[in-house]
Amino acid sequence: MIVKKLVRFGVSLDHHLLDHFDRHIKTKKYTNRSEALRDLIRDKLVGEEWSENKETVGTITFVYDHHVRNLTNKLTNLQHNFQGLVLTGMHVHLDHDHCLEVLVVKGKGAQIKKVADAILSIKGVKHGKLAMTTTGKALSR
Amino acid sequence: MIVKKLVRFGVSLDHHLLDHFDRHIKTKKYTNRSEALRDLIRDKLVGEEWSENKETVGTITFVYDHHVRNLTNKLTNLQHNFQGLVLTGMHVHLDHDHCLEVLVVKGKGAQIKKVADAILSIKGVKHGKLAMTTTGKALSR
Amino acid sequence: MIVKKLVRFGVSLDHHLLDHFDRHIKTKKYTNRSEALRDLIRDKLVGEEWSENKETVGTITFVYDHHVRNLTNKLTNLQHNFQGLVLTGMHVHLDHDHCLEVLVVKGKGAQIKKVADAILSIKGVKHGKLAMTTTGKALSR
Amino acid sequence: MIVKKLVRFGVSLDHHLLDHFDRHIKTKKYTNRSEALRDLIRDKLVGEEWSENKETVGTITFVYDHHVRNLTNKLTNLQHNFQGLVLTGMHVHLDHDHCLEVLVVKGKGAQIKKVADAILSIKGVKHGKLAMTTTGKALSR
Repeated sequence: MIVKKLVRFGVSLDHHLLDHFDRHIKTKKYTNRSEALRDLIRDKLVGEEWSENKETVGTITFVYDHHVRNLTNKLTNLQHNFQGLVLTGMHVHLDHDHCLEVLVVKGKGAQIKKVADAILSIKGVKHGKLAMTTTGKALSR
Repeated sequence: MIVKKLVRFGVSLDHHLLDHFDRHIKTKKYTNRSEALRDLIRDKLVGEEWSENKETVGTITFVYDHHVRNLTNKLTNLQHNFQGLVLTGMHVHLDHDHCLEVLVVKGKGAQIKKVADAILSIKGVKHGKLAMTTTGKALSR
Repeated sequence: MIVKKLVRFGVSLDHHLLDHFDRHIKTKKYTNRSEALRDLIRDKLVGEEWSENKETVGTITFVYDHHVRNLTNKLTNLQHNFQGLVLTGMHVHLDHDHCLEVLVVKGKGAQIKKVADAILSIKGVKHGKLAMTTTGKALSR
Repeated sequence: MIVKKLVRFGVSLDHHLLDHFDRHIKTKKYTNRSEALRDLIRDKLVGEEWSENKETVGTITFVYDHHVRNLTNKLTNLQHNFQGLVLTGMHVHLDHDHCLEVLVVKGKGAQIKKVADAILSIKGVKHGKLAMTTTGKALSR
């Protein structure tokens, strides 16, 4: 475990803005302002990791109809073609027809987007989204 | 002018995260951390103003081909129908065919979205975007 | 398996716009225009499912530092509190410190957002995103 | 005026998906499917214009408190520094304290984003958004 050094610094805010923010973080169940501010900061920085094409992590969620001929085959092949990138996946049976699948993908931002494009353009894949998150490294070291 | 009371409070942050944030705000030309944090906070709160359908302000930007028959007419009528909402507008001639127009619209979030939908669905309007901002009131009082 | 009735209808497009679109779908590896248009339509409709708070499905991806005291406990409790909503989850060890977790959540849009808020506000959860997708039902029946 | 050649082609859609889409476009006041589909296509293509850093147009909307010392000065200077990019602007007095300004900016996507960053980081600018639209050219020729 890495020993973390916490730094404390002062922030000045108009008191009406602070009131408003305090009401907001109460609604969102934050226990203190620092934690809420850290989340805002990290979300901003993760957005930049992606726009600068750094090594990062994302999940690709997609919903498909498993009755579509050859679809499961195509999806499996595709995941093998991007083998270095797709770490793992999970499958959920939503109803008689529909499956949801989530893949965890690690790599440069642009590569992960390419995997997402390739999956979402397959016939039978009805909808999907890429969630852009982070390896966590850049946020703590 | 309202006299503003500034409140100062402490925030604690992992020093690696703070380093990363400091580099970010330098790139974005912020002069200090407080101002950068205020922007993150205000952006979050403006997002909530809109999702809670409060009185707010937006601008609708759209690009159209003024040669399309009857289009300028339709746009003028529409703005008169939403008279209480559309405050003002500006027109830019982009090239021989294309005009850009920006409208400033004030009202409940859902009403402003309705004006935007009505404009963007008109034939000849090629593209448009609603920018959701704020009256500024809730952010300072 | 449900027998699907395909309807065919004509769309008219400026030939320059069509050229541009054809180049786009080639880049994205679509095999035909219909499939690319279906994706645009479904993405629009899924957006509305969420804004109208209908029954839907989302995945919550988050990255956390498992060394943070009591965190794994809190995450487990939270998932049990929202038991009817959280269908399943998957865990990935990103490095010595960081874990990524993906939860599949089914319910009304607003409820799913509440689960996401609750998770993302926990101390030690460094970043997270809600991917809003669909049960698939409304898109095919 | 450019003579436009309309191309007509067939699209096949599951009839449930088509029903759903028809209800959607009725709500949005579209007069026909082609127009609604053109909008979905153009929005997708404009998104790519921006991600590929092509020549394009955007509007920057921001709200500020004109009592903040030296702010109007800074804003004017900044617009002159980016003179080739900022085409025009409009000013609205929202209340005793707050002004809204909209600038129309033309240039490469990345340059426009830089102008937006520079404005939004100025102290006293409370909130702002960049609306990414288009010169319209690429969409019709």
